[in-house]
Amino acid sequence: MKVVELSGGVGGARMARGLTAVRDVDLTVVVNVGDDEEIHGLHVSADLDTVIYTLAGVEGPDGWGRSADTFVLNEELARFGVDNRFRLGDLDLALNLFRTQALAEGKPLSVITAEIADSFDLRADVVPATNDTLRTEVRIEGDEWLSFQEYFVLRGNRDEVKELRYPGSEAAHPAPGVLEAIGAADVVVIAPSNPPLSIWPILAINEIRQAIRSHQRVVAVSPLFGGKSLKGPADRVMASLGLPAGNAGVIEAYAGLIEMLVVDTQDADDARQLGGVEIMVTDTRIARATRARELAEEILAV
Amino acid sequence: MKVVELSGGVGGARMARGLTAVRDVDLTVVVNVGDDEEIHGLHVSADLDTVIYTLAGVEGPDGWGRSADTFVLNEELARFGVDNRFRLGDLDLALNLFRTQALAEGKPLSVITAEIADSFDLRADVVPATNDTLRTEVRIEGDEWLSFQEYFVLRGNRDEVKELRYPGSEAAHPAPGVLEAIGAADVVVIAPSNPPLSIWPILAINEIRQAIRSHQRVVAVSPLFGGKSLKGPADRVMASLGLPAGNAGVIEAYAGLIEMLVVDTQDADDARQLGGVEIMVTDTRIARATRARELAEEILAV
Repeated sequence: MKVVELSGGVGGARMARGLTAVRDVDLTVVVNVGDDEEIHGLHVSADLDTVIYTLAGVEGPDGWGRSADTFVLNEELARFGVDNRFRLGDLDLALNLFRTQALAEGKPLSVITAEIADSFDLRADVVPATNDTLRTEVRIEGDEWLSFQEYFVLRGNRDEVKELRYPGSEAAHPAPGVLEAIGAADVVVIAPSNPPLSIWPILAINEIRQAIRSHQRVVAVSPLFGGKSLKGPADRVMASLGLPAGNAGVIEAYAGLIEMLVVDTQDADDARQLGGVEIMVTDTRIARATRARELAEEILAV
Repeated sequence: MKVVELSGGVGGARMARGLTAVRDVDLTVVVNVGDDEEIHGLHVSADLDTVIYTLAGVEGPDGWGRSADTFVLNEELARFGVDNRFRLGDLDLALNLFRTQALAEGKPLSVITAEIADSFDLRADVVPATNDTLRTEVRIEGDEWLSFQEYFVLRGNRDEVKELRYPGSEAAHPAPGVLEAIGAADVVVIAPSNPPLSIWPILAINEIRQAIRSHQRVVAVSPLFGGKSLKGPADRVMASLGLPAGNAGVIEAYAGLIEMLVVDTQDADDARQLGGVEIMVTDTRIARATRARELAEEILAV
């Protein structure tokens, strides 16, 4: 069974871990690159790495970065007055150094990502949404535009998000293999990632949006639990962008694109009011790998 | 007393440590940049860092790199198939990442070097010979030209050196402060570094060569002990380039530039044959800081 997942960071990575654990699933994870950032001159692809580390079973305790990483280099940067609040571990920096150097040598991000995935012996294909430069930018109070990581990590995603934009998206083309994978997929799963911040930057690439729109079977997993995001600002961001509260907002975020929405049991009551798409109500807490696999099986069984 | 030292790596760093330990010495160390190399996309300035680390008392056990460094990042690079034989520790990489980023932002190497020296609270001024790109290249058997680090580190400096060149030297200007420091110096000390590999690249900058030639008091410390280099290929390189054996070769390497040569007690007999410059015979083994200071005092007392 061929499955494509559209993924942001931690939630998408856990969903991908569940999907690859299902027998006979051939998974391609199409990953958001709007969060990519130059940090200390290195090209950091936060979501790609979170997906790869999680599929490899070497993710950090909070879902991002590497497990058992050390921070020798990051700490030492303070000596030179470098802002080191974006904490990159030594193992994580090795990957970022490799990627930055490979990009400088002219290799496309998708080729580099495949090499990294191979180095961890992953079974799933992990593909950036695009090899072109596409960024997520956030407008906050006072008409200031921030890069995603400045908003999310450095300012702790506390600001109210007034507006989003995805510079580069109009000129961006899908990375090689993305449209083919979507075209061949039995089902497309939109991960329980933040819709505006993690999935819209993928859908901002017109050819991908069209391919998802044309696909017969697109299932989104809601990132909400009792109407709130587990961690992160998904509920707040959706509200401040004018989307309806709760899963009605998720459905509107994916209007015209999805055939089914999977919501958590905590939202069973709220789910009765929802319309326009099929609704599946189940336990969507997938921090544990076994539950992630079960959820994937339930979704693929429909 | 104002002193300028021309320095390569380990030997020059130890000489600098001795000179700064002398009362009332105001030291400027002008450091070779011919060994600089791009490694994993980072700008590595091996000699500058060896001098700074040694003056800060945080040099590695063999004189280069940082003491008590870890190699987490370097080891992990192997996962991605990266050639990691040029071993850079995590602390050392922090400095290299900072420098690379600062260069990319347009800061001159001399400014960055001063910031790094400040971050270690150094008393001496440490200055790259030039802010321009100047490299030492080595021709070996078979007419192959190698970068310095490829010859020295990766091939273990075992190849016979047929010829040297310093691409960039003709267009290179001294870094700000170099000519002023030489002009104001009571004495210029040429460190016991490898003359062709470490000092000639500094002297290949015409304005520096002229300033040294014009200076009244230039003292070179021989890198030879019983006619041989302690470590490294100085004796072999000088021989293969056609210089006389022993300290006669060192005098010829600095012909027209120096007023005095300091040779080790092991070369006392050989020293009687030498002519053209003053000769001082003393113990020049300066791995220990106390002996480095004593040697500096002896040189400055003359």
